[in-house]
Amino acid sequence: MSAPLDARVVREWGERYSNWGRWGEDDQKGTLNFITRERVRAACALPRSGEVISCALPFDDEGPQSGIGGRHNPIHRMIATGADALAGAQDFFPGGFNYADDSVSMPLQCGTQWDALAHVFYDGKMYNDRDVALVTSRGAQANSIDQIKDGVVGRGVLLDMPRFLRRPWLDDGTRILPEDLDACAEASGVAVESGDVVLVRTGMLTRCLTQKSWQGYCGGPAPGLSVHCARWIFEREIAALATDTWGVEVIPNETPDCFQPLHMISLRNTGLLLGEIFHLDALSKSCAADGNYAFLFMAAPLPITGAVGSPINPLAIK
Amino acid sequence: MSAPLDARVVREWGERYSNWGRWGEDDQKGTLNFITRERVRAACALPRSGEVISCALPFDDEGPQSGIGGRHNPIHRMIATGADALAGAQDFFPGGFNYADDSVSMPLQCGTQWDALAHVFYDGKMYNDRDVALVTSRGAQANSIDQIKDGVVGRGVLLDMPRFLRRPWLDDGTRILPEDLDACAEASGVAVESGDVVLVRTGMLTRCLTQKSWQGYCGGPAPGLSVHCARWIFEREIAALATDTWGVEVIPNETPDCFQPLHMISLRNTGLLLGEIFHLDALSKSCAADGNYAFLFMAAPLPITGAVGSPINPLAIK
Amino acid sequence: MSAPLDARVVREWGERYSNWGRWGEDDQKGTLNFITRERVRAACALPRSGEVISCALPFDDEGPQSGIGGRHNPIHRMIATGADALAGAQDFFPGGFNYADDSVSMPLQCGTQWDALAHVFYDGKMYNDRDVALVTSRGAQANSIDQIKDGVVGRGVLLDMPRFLRRPWLDDGTRILPEDLDACAEASGVAVESGDVVLVRTGMLTRCLTQKSWQGYCGGPAPGLSVHCARWIFEREIAALATDTWGVEVIPNETPDCFQPLHMISLRNTGLLLGEIFHLDALSKSCAADGNYAFLFMAAPLPITGAVGSPINPLAIK
Amino acid sequence: MSAPLDARVVREWGERYSNWGRWGEDDQKGTLNFITRERVRAACALPRSGEVISCALPFDDEGPQSGIGGRHNPIHRMIATGADALAGAQDFFPGGFNYADDSVSMPLQCGTQWDALAHVFYDGKMYNDRDVALVTSRGAQANSIDQIKDGVVGRGVLLDMPRFLRRPWLDDGTRILPEDLDACAEASGVAVESGDVVLVRTGMLTRCLTQKSWQGYCGGPAPGLSVHCARWIFEREIAALATDTWGVEVIPNETPDCFQPLHMISLRNTGLLLGEIFHLDALSKSCAADGNYAFLFMAAPLPITGAVGSPINPLAIK
Repeated sequence: MSAPLDARVVREWGERYSNWGRWGEDDQKGTLNFITRERVRAACALPRSGEVISCALPFDDEGPQSGIGGRHNPIHRMIATGADALAGAQDFFPGGFNYADDSVSMPLQCGTQWDALAHVFYDGKMYNDRDVALVTSRGAQANSIDQIKDGVVGRGVLLDMPRFLRRPWLDDGTRILPEDLDACAEASGVAVESGDVVLVRTGMLTRCLTQKSWQGYCGGPAPGLSVHCARWIFEREIAALATDTWGVEVIPNETPDCFQPLHMISLRNTGLLLGEIFHLDALSKSCAADGNYAFLFMAAPLPITGAVGSPINPLAIK
Repeated sequence: MSAPLDARVVREWGERYSNWGRWGEDDQKGTLNFITRERVRAACALPRSGEVISCALPFDDEGPQSGIGGRHNPIHRMIATGADALAGAQDFFPGGFNYADDSVSMPLQCGTQWDALAHVFYDGKMYNDRDVALVTSRGAQANSIDQIKDGVVGRGVLLDMPRFLRRPWLDDGTRILPEDLDACAEASGVAVESGDVVLVRTGMLTRCLTQKSWQGYCGGPAPGLSVHCARWIFEREIAALATDTWGVEVIPNETPDCFQPLHMISLRNTGLLLGEIFHLDALSKSCAADGNYAFLFMAAPLPITGAVGSPINPLAIK
Repeated sequence: MSAPLDARVVREWGERYSNWGRWGEDDQKGTLNFITRERVRAACALPRSGEVISCALPFDDEGPQSGIGGRHNPIHRMIATGADALAGAQDFFPGGFNYADDSVSMPLQCGTQWDALAHVFYDGKMYNDRDVALVTSRGAQANSIDQIKDGVVGRGVLLDMPRFLRRPWLDDGTRILPEDLDACAEASGVAVESGDVVLVRTGMLTRCLTQKSWQGYCGGPAPGLSVHCARWIFEREIAALATDTWGVEVIPNETPDCFQPLHMISLRNTGLLLGEIFHLDALSKSCAADGNYAFLFMAAPLPITGAVGSPINPLAIK
Repeated sequence: MSAPLDARVVREWGERYSNWGRWGEDDQKGTLNFITRERVRAACALPRSGEVISCALPFDDEGPQSGIGGRHNPIHRMIATGADALAGAQDFFPGGFNYADDSVSMPLQCGTQWDALAHVFYDGKMYNDRDVALVTSRGAQANSIDQIKDGVVGRGVLLDMPRFLRRPWLDDGTRILPEDLDACAEASGVAVESGDVVLVRTGMLTRCLTQKSWQGYCGGPAPGLSVHCARWIFEREIAALATDTWGVEVIPNETPDCFQPLHMISLRNTGLLLGEIFHLDALSKSCAADGNYAFLFMAAPLPITGAVGSPINPLAIK
């Protein structure tokens, strides 16, 4: 590459890989528009074994968050318990009916999650030429996660980078280029197509679980996608892209003067749905076992009104 | 029926319609075991149009909760906003990167949701002969929602009672008997089979939205399933059952001396996954339009460790 | 009054009754500066009986909040319970040690509370010429409640309007003028002095408790201080002022084109500490009984970093 | 000491130093009963300079909690901000009124706090012969913090151990015996009397702040009171006792087979109000400067209904 990667290039590429207006000025779904009904139907024809595999990390206080940016792990509190029942605190119910009930308090992006199109922006604008002033303490008035409540169902493709490279995981700072994605896909016998949900495994989450330490996972150095993938994502018409890392992108970023440039381009300009902290180990094993890296994928966000993200439990049906 | 319906009968029927031990003493999935891989595969073959329909109510402060039992509507709070960015509060990011972030605090059963098998119990025991002392302030050590993280994917069947009966909604107190379910299914051209996820629409939620009032929705009189459905659920081998009401069952309950007897029998003894506060109006319209009341259904719970319920965004793929 | 009370007058009076710069450009305490050490000492000399009276409403789910502005009543959740202990969930502690623990989630102004000087502002500025851009999702960088962590201790004076007027409570919409305050004080045998904490009882809270309904309490019509009190507050050098209402001021406001004009003038320009939802009934009875309306008063805010308000438990020592 | 300190001795001493029934079987205030009105009045006569000193640690995300026992640092979230106002999100208010609002979510014992008498118990009973089954997910039905809403106002005495011993702080594991407390008091020119609120400074919090690390502060080794102080507390008729540590007591505990024995005896049997995580550095300096270790003390708990603790902002008035 001749030109240095900097904040100016990020804006140029943002212009170049923009889908603003492509699906109308009212559009709030971005690249999910690539998942047409035909593609949903075709994806439903993929399952062979009927095996269902969750790609979610457990939501609990052993999660990856360390407090950065005000994000903490889920706080689970009981409202009623079996112990209460035994202690007689529920005797007001007739007939011996007893129950347990509970609640959670959690940042919406503390675990396995989708970013809404209102999550990242720059220069005062977010996806589809909308003003960032629409995102206040009362939530996002546009591009919020509830706009995609009927998604995400489509064809999922796993690009299992460490397995392809015969390593347990990619090292921190390893950048994944478009040609790496293509090579991995080819070796996996799968072609990435318009409307695909692409799951890129780096092994970083595997490493954290193996080493029993989340140190550095949130916001620290990480393997991840190069900003050069912005073009690949745009041209391949990827519907959604997710990784097993905190922030999809390689860290340190390739743009010394710009934080998370791929988010800036792909989320804001391309309108790409990004997923993070996906737990892809079980899926990795299953795909390696049957040699099949394409499957029916679904991950429905909770339609929290005005939210800029949502925890999810993504499922792959093989 | 000759015998009066009372707390004693509830226990008798609990014995009669029990699946304890059916899938081993370690089982924590209950009736979801009826959804075999074959049935998942068969369900995936159902979609014709590729239309995806969400069955979730928006999660926000206009939800149905009134504070009963400590349940409140979701509290959505921003951690970072576009307004912050405009005010210069995010200038520490290089390159003009800006973002929004948020959190939610919510009872796990405040909106569209699954009950875990640890949610309802009596006489000191919950599903599969487990002690209720396992459910304390630290969560449920068994029968918790994270035990079914690989679910729920299967065949969904909508039994649209008010449409069948040509009414806008069923009146409060209307009980739905097994023969009503069968008649509705037959009129809809669908047969309920082992492993089905049965969605019963009463129209109560439609009424609340139409009248713009949740008054009485939570815990008040409601149309719903008769306790006689316990046998139907058991014999038909229903995998999961959900309604558009707060608590599935007809209220007032048919057992004056026993609260929510169907929960007591079907959830605790049969091991049935129950869903509540499903928003079935869009699905109702779609099924009426194409005459097809069976579809691929999926509703993955958030695997919150030790939780006794989970908010969900159920999807029907037609 | 000849001139109409409108948004323009509010700004004029804001200029006129401003304490900006009075205690230096770094000041973040406003009128609390009137409580000199001498006045603290003098206030400590007031108690005669040693009776201590709380002026806090209980913090629980029966509080006054109705959800307006995102404010809800406190949500109290247990982390550990006696029931847990009985169920054996705490047996890991040696020697039979058992405990209970808990948490709260609450808007800082959902009950008896102080407003920080960062709570109300207009025209882009808050107290002491500070930019409102200092108040973002990360909290208030100035004029926050933790700036007054060493307060509030001083002389308290109760102006018990309904007792003075021989009524159970003032009607909604009743405005309290400076001359009303003076007449009440005189009848109570007390003179309001520089540095005083003035507690004005309207009886509205008494009425809500009596009628067992908070309907309209938050944000609805209310008895309260006239905007004309802005001058009285400024000239008398009141250190803090609190009422038993949601918002101190008479509602409907006297300025049809301006919401809460007294907050705008007195909080932002005068730098007045305002207290709300004070429960003054016990204090009212005590003062009526002994005829003594001045006392040692203390109400320490929780020093929550960057907060714009704090729940408090105000104490009067007589 | 001849007898080994074990769980059996803890129960013996619990019997010996019990105040159960001393103030009636309905009593829920315990040792606060020692603060008679006369003592309140006398305490009010103590202040000489009028200086007010807060003994609270800031409540924020840099607090001492590490997640042990489900305790996290306070989570402060904004509901409305100045940035919102600038972005036009508050333009619906007439007259340019703008405001900020916020909320907190916090364990009640995550920072400077009082333990309620329902906080610690053993053998199925808590203070004044009450069953621990009274403490369930719905809160404590007795011995809760709201029972002492009219407290705590009285004479405070600082026992500044590290200053007395001419060290910056006591080492972890250092136990403080009754004779140490007496020696320190004598050297400070103060006699501990019935009804006193005794603040014992160990310097541990100073060390953590100095070293910018809370490592080990919560639940780890700590300097603190010996279990032998149980007798001293009982005989001296201490009204409340607080330290600058997480748990008052020396850790490792002197009773290998029993956790926190002083809590077991003094809180449960003696009915002692315990305070923890007090920030005593400013008070330490002030007392050293004027040589006066007795002062008017006040620390009012938030009357959260049924709570087993409360955050506080304790004030010393000198």
